[in-house]
Order: sequence, then structure tokens, then C-alpha cells
Amino acid sequence: MEKLIFGHKSPDTDTICSSLVLANLRTKLGDSVKACRLGEPNKETKYALDYLNVQAPQLICEVEKDQEVILVDHNEFSQSADGIKNAKIKMVVDHHRINDFETAEPLYYRAEPVGCTCTILYKMYKENNVEIDKTMAGLMLSAIISDTLLLKSPTKTVEDEKAVEELAKIAQIDYKEYGLEMLKAGTDLSDLSAEELISLDCKECSLNDKKAKIAQVNSADISVMLARKAEIEEAMKKDIEQNGVDLFVFVITDIIESNSQAIVLGKETSIFERAFGVALENDEAYLPGVVSRKKQILPPLQNNV
Amino acid sequence: MEKLIFGHKSPDTDTICSSLVLANLRTKLGDSVKACRLGEPNKETKYALDYLNVQAPQLICEVEKDQEVILVDHNEFSQSADGIKNAKIKMVVDHHRINDFETAEPLYYRAEPVGCTCTILYKMYKENNVEIDKTMAGLMLSAIISDTLLLKSPTKTVEDEKAVEELAKIAQIDYKEYGLEMLKAGTDLSDLSAEELISLDCKECSLNDKKAKIAQVNSADISVMLARKAEIEEAMKKDIEQNGVDLFVFVITDIIESNSQAIVLGKETSIFERAFGVALENDEAYLPGVVSRKKQILPPLQNNV
Repeated sequence: MEKLIFGHKSPDTDTICSSLVLANLRTKLGDSVKACRLGEPNKETKYALDYLNVQAPQLICEVEKDQEVILVDHNEFSQSADGIKNAKIKMVVDHHRINDFETAEPLYYRAEPVGCTCTILYKMYKENNVEIDKTMAGLMLSAIISDTLLLKSPTKTVEDEKAVEELAKIAQIDYKEYGLEMLKAGTDLSDLSAEELISLDCKECSLNDKKAKIAQVNSADISVMLARKAEIEEAMKKDIEQNGVDLFVFVITDIIESNSQAIVLGKETSIFERAFGVALENDEAYLPGVVSRKKQILPPLQNNV
Repeated sequence: MEKLIFGHKSPDTDTICSSLVLANLRTKLGDSVKACRLGEPNKETKYALDYLNVQAPQLICEVEKDQEVILVDHNEFSQSADGIKNAKIKMVVDHHRINDFETAEPLYYRAEPVGCTCTILYKMYKENNVEIDKTMAGLMLSAIISDTLLLKSPTKTVEDEKAVEELAKIAQIDYKEYGLEMLKAGTDLSDLSAEELISLDCKECSLNDKKAKIAQVNSADISVMLARKAEIEEAMKKDIEQNGVDLFVFVITDIIESNSQAIVLGKETSIFERAFGVALENDEAYLPGVVSRKKQILPPLQNNV
């Protein structure tokens, strides 16, 4: 049976590139697989795919019962394809915590606490003695640049740096110049509605019995995004009401200066205030040096419920 | 902080050997770790440790809050150390399905659907270019022989066979002769009480909302174990009552002939009868060719709830 490889909903660059790259590696190892995606690539990802002249993976909406699948860049069922609970998960390659995940059968699971799934895939090529071609190197490079904000995020590890260095050589790309252009391409969100903005890269999580959502957008100029604050807040309030969200954090991250501004709503905003030792002003807070949801936003929230 | 490495409760040979072997590998890679165990080694494991002149890992009962730990040969919290939910799980090396497991932080997770955790550890030595010494080879060999019943279990993979071949060379052990002696040493359970027999290697699992326990003992002669049926059933009934167990399956596996005899009690015995297409006679059923709980007992039960 052909296995479907896909990343999370609201795909980002790592999720799209990882499905393409692992499909390449598995095919070279003799497996029958197909790269898929659960949504539209964002502008940053499109920039990378266009630059590298690579087609996006095939869009799927759900998986059928007993379909064999491989998950990349996620494991939580709530972030995965509809029907995932009844699919057969044969393999996972990921760099997130494990949560809301279980299988009926043993599987191949490879997670490492590195900045990007593609850094693990890079190692898997080496372990399996499979050569990395120029296009695959470009895809992995794009993903690592995206997830680590050009190696500036605290999620970045020595292994990510090492991978970027070698992959840039194989891809024959000046990664700093290319990376900044790619990240900037992702910050043009002017054609998105407020509803789309808050769901573009949104992770849901439980804080004990409270339901929290943390959405994040990259920006080259925070003031451009803040100019749309009224409609963003309206969309957040609607989502809070419709989905019973207790805390909604919308994070605008300045990719040039490596800071963030957060808009925070919901009846549990005090968790956020405790977590960051701030008092919200007009639902807003400035978070100097904060760029990583995983390392710098989620843990303090979890520790201050 | 020194990380504690341990396998599951009611330790078997793979659990004990994996903690010792991974402690050796991590130490050689510069990590600060200590091999631990959550219970008394069984006779089979003791035979292996004595033969190889290796001390058992240190006994621990629980782990403290925020203690950094590494799990081997299990992931389910119900099989792990008391307090595991508040420990920091930094790494897992395992060959079971993932269930009843979650972390707050990203981690290193390595699972493969092979017959034994030590087969994965064997690969990790190679990937990290760390030499395997004679003692470590002996420990890994013992674990693979134990988990695959001398490569006769359907859980055995090509990778387990390959590992056994190379490890036997390094350990300078005639693995067939040694393996049979080791397995036989594990079948002498004459000094165990019925209560100890049913908890020696017992896995708890949920079948939808039903609570099931599947205990397994190895035997060189099933009739020896069946001679104690009355007291075994009494112990099972007591456990069913005290712990609200809906289905208790006690499996006696003939390691020479590769068959099993099951004693089945509880108010949900019909699940077992459906799963194996048998009618219990005096609470008993013969299961020809069945030796693996993971591959041959658990899945049919799960598919027939």
C-alpha cells in the first residue's frame, strides 16, 4: 500500500518541505510513498517552492480507515488529518513534544529536540548513505531557515547550524541572503482576512483544563500588523466564543529585530500576565527577545496555570 | 543533572540489559547517567548477569519532580516509575506502540518496530561510531534472545537476526546453546508464589473502557505450571476483585515447542473467546503457534472488544 506522508494542518515551510524530502528519501530506500499536505502553502513556502522549482505536495482533506501514513513535523492528532485515529501510523519524524498521540501497533518514531524536522531528515540521509541532491538540499535549507528564523531562534541547536552549513553548499545558495528574502516573502499578509491571520499558524493546547490557542505571524514591521488590531481582536473574540477558548494569544514576531508583540484575549489572560510578569495594556504586551512559541511562550504559560 | 535510565516495572531481560547498555553508550558520548531498575531481575536475567559478570542496575522506587530520566523498553506511564508524570523525560528508546505517554517538552524519541530494544541500541552504537565491548555485546545478545525467544517469535525482524549474528561474534558466545540455557533458567518459577507468578511479566491495557491484564510466563514444560492452576486462579480472582480487572489472561508459553496455554478469567472472557475463535474449557484454551503477547495476543483482543 502506498503510504501518505504529511505534516500538520495550516502547513508551514518545515511541514511542506519535510513531506517532500521524506518522500524522496523513502522512495530512494525502496518504499512506496506519496507526499501530501493538509492545506494551502503560505507565502513563505511558496517563495521557497518557486525558487527551487518544486511542486507543492498533493492536497488531501482526510485519511481513510487503515490507510498507512507517515507523519512529519507533528504528532498531535488535533493537528493532523481528519480520520487519523483510524489510520495506521507507520512512522513519525518530528521535533515537538509528544502529546495527544497513540498507536495500536509498534512503529518507527524518530524525534529529536532540534530546531527543525528537516535537520533530522538531513541526518537520516547520512545514516542511510543516501546522497542529498541539490533540490532536496534547498528544501531542507528553507525549512531550517524558516523554523529557526535564520538561526536566530532559541530553538536552534548546533545540529541545525551544521545542517544549514552543509546544505547551503550542496544547494549552492547564499543562505543568509536567500533566507531573508524568503522570510520577508512570508510577512506579506495584506491579502489575508483577520480570520485567516489568526488561523494561519495557530496551535491549540490545554493548560490543565483550560483551552488555549497561540497564533503566530512573522513580520518585518510590527506596526503594519498592529494597524489591523481592531479586526484581529474581533476575529479572536468570535473564535473564543464559538470554540470555547479560554486564552487566545496572537503573537506578532519581528523577524529582523527578534522581538514580539502579543495581543491577548479570553477570560484567562491572567495566566499570560503571570507567565510573563507583565500587565496587559489595551490587551497588548511587548515581549523583548521572544520569537519561539515552543521554547519561550508555551512553557511559561504551562508553568503558570 | 545525572539522568536516570530505567525500563518498565516487573523488569525482564530486555529492560534490565537496555538500561545498562544505554548507560554505557551515553557515558561514552559524554552524558551523565545512571542505570536503574524498578524491580527485582527475574531468574532468566540473573542467569545472564551472572554469566556476563555484570551487576544489576540500582533499584529505585520512584522519581522526584523534575528529575531528568531516560526510558528504555517502555513508554506507558502506567508501566513506568511512580512520579513519572512530573519527571523530565529527555529520551526514550523503545520498540512498543506509543500509548499513555506525553511530555511538556520536545525530546529525543527513538522507536522502531523491531523485536527488542537492544537491537535499536546496537544500531545507535554504530550510528555514533562507538565500539561495542564484549560485555555490552553479551547483554544485548541476551536481551534479543529473550524478547524473540531465540529468534523464534513473530516479533523477530531481519534486523534482530543481523544484530544477534554480529553480537554473538563480539561476545564470543555460542548464542543457540547459551540462549537455550538462559531461557530455561527463566522457566524455573517453583519458588514463586501464585501472586508473584501472575505479576512477574504482566501488562495492563485498556480495551475500550474495559481493563485487561495479560500476564505471561515462559515454560519448558507447560504441565508443570498447570499443576498449580488452582492457586494461580485464586490469585487471579483476587487481583480481578481488588483492581477492577475485566479480563485477566495468564499465558504459559512453551519456549521449546512455541505454543501457549492460556488461563482466562474475568467478566469479559467472551472478548478472548471471540478474539481466538475458541470456547474456554475449565477457563483454559490452547493457542497453537502463539508466543508473542504484542503480536499475537494483544491485537486480536483489541479487534474483538
